[in-house]
Amino acid sequence: MTFQQYVATQSERVNIALHRLVPEESCAPTIIHKAMRYSLFAGGKRIRPLLCMAAGEAIHPNAPGIEDAACALELIHTYSLIHDDLPALDNDDLRRGRPTNHKVFGEAMAILAGDSLLTLAFQVLAELPHCPPDRTIRIVAELAIASGTVGGMIAGQVHDLEGEHMAPSAKLLDTIHRAKTGALLRASVRIGALYAGASETQLAALSDYGEHIGLAFQIVDDLLDIEQSSEQLGKTAGKDAAQHKITFPAVYGVERSHDMAREELSAAHRALEAFGESAHWLREIANTIVNRTH
Amino acid sequence: MTFQQYVATQSERVNIALHRLVPEESCAPTIIHKAMRYSLFAGGKRIRPLLCMAAGEAIHPNAPGIEDAACALELIHTYSLIHDDLPALDNDDLRRGRPTNHKVFGEAMAILAGDSLLTLAFQVLAELPHCPPDRTIRIVAELAIASGTVGGMIAGQVHDLEGEHMAPSAKLLDTIHRAKTGALLRASVRIGALYAGASETQLAALSDYGEHIGLAFQIVDDLLDIEQSSEQLGKTAGKDAAQHKITFPAVYGVERSHDMAREELSAAHRALEAFGESAHWLREIANTIVNRTH
Repeated sequence: MTFQQYVATQSERVNIALHRLVPEESCAPTIIHKAMRYSLFAGGKRIRPLLCMAAGEAIHPNAPGIEDAACALELIHTYSLIHDDLPALDNDDLRRGRPTNHKVFGEAMAILAGDSLLTLAFQVLAELPHCPPDRTIRIVAELAIASGTVGGMIAGQVHDLEGEHMAPSAKLLDTIHRAKTGALLRASVRIGALYAGASETQLAALSDYGEHIGLAFQIVDDLLDIEQSSEQLGKTAGKDAAQHKITFPAVYGVERSHDMAREELSAAHRALEAFGESAHWLREIANTIVNRTH
Repeated sequence: MTFQQYVATQSERVNIALHRLVPEESCAPTIIHKAMRYSLFAGGKRIRPLLCMAAGEAIHPNAPGIEDAACALELIHTYSLIHDDLPALDNDDLRRGRPTNHKVFGEAMAILAGDSLLTLAFQVLAELPHCPPDRTIRIVAELAIASGTVGGMIAGQVHDLEGEHMAPSAKLLDTIHRAKTGALLRASVRIGALYAGASETQLAALSDYGEHIGLAFQIVDDLLDIEQSSEQLGKTAGKDAAQHKITFPAVYGVERSHDMAREELSAAHRALEAFGESAHWLREIANTIVNRTH
């Protein structure tokens, strides 16, 4: 199987599961389910679910139902995008080449659609059909902490908002991105590993991998915002500079940022050494994250 | 013990647990924890936690750690108030006699504070110290469904927003309130019962109680909005009529609404018959919900 075929197969698995897990558009109140599905099926790259399932494969060749756990990560990610795009936050009109949720459904519905996706993520985990209860609980805690205010995604968003008024520094940058995107990417890997029954040693190695690709992902994201057009990105380019965001190129310069992304990629590969062939797709995903152009 | 003493004791237990469960104001990023705590410790009546713990007592005289499960309900309730008060939703400046969250911390932080409380609710459940894993998972599912878009709290909010443009009808009113306030009040009772190890028969009876007091609560809420001043309520009075909300007095008239509240109270008492003295405080809470003046 080529990597492209692998990604297509796994994305399809996630999409089928999402269609099953999210109430249909005809379900009352219809408008909220339309709003949830609008952003959920807007051409997202499903990076977090892919990471989750590939981490599961590194532990066990077959973990039935893992796609449901993977969907919980996509639900959280999508909620965060909807709320981030709101006028009170990043005030963005364009996401993945389409109008943002509040542009289509209004601010009230966008706020509630985000809340709904966040809530549904935990319902999906509580209803995982093939996961032993103690493992499920650990996964719920993992997702909540990675999404939360202490080193998690919301912490990153708050630091990011506050950072707009602060001098860029390496320390602040590190704090922001470990939390804002890093925590959920790391949790994606950890949740897949936990689901598939990883030992604590395996979990530690995969967490290490998750941290490195999390950083690599954010460095590349910051670089793309400078180097690509809005059309190529499907979202407004050049916004980081316009909003005085603290980014890797702003702190380290473009050249050094490219080097750092490559260094994080190497570190991610090193973390996978003990897994041999079972971590094949995790390696490919890491390469793709660093070499992507949008 | 008088009911007043009981409420004071139990509220104190909840407040102590909340202080332990919510990150301190000094924890970085400090602003989000200040915003979360501002609304959480704003003099809420803790009705949902009280219901949860009293339902637990109806099943078992002692359920250690049940106050943590009760706190999850208060976290969800508080998040919903913060988001409901936002300019894009109810646009309210006053809550419990104090400026609303976004008036103090700004809209961006209020949105994130709501998200944070919602996320923390599930973390708290996943970390319940004394609850068997299968019971914990059922509680997580219960809370997520009651807060969600299919017959849950968000469904009620959406119907409520949409209802502003529709003719008031008994059916629409029933749909809105069963979801908007009813689902979480019912879940408060059910989660307490589940935590304490209720049988399915006991759970059904307590669910019945929860539904009746949920309806009674909302009828009284609608009546207070008409009959009391903003000062007495600690929030803007007369808003339902101003916003063309569908309320019990608007559909049934004031007199009939008072009768209905009393009928729901009687039905709630009937649902508790099999529990004898162990449901003493549940009865007192029901009486207080119907007879409150704010």
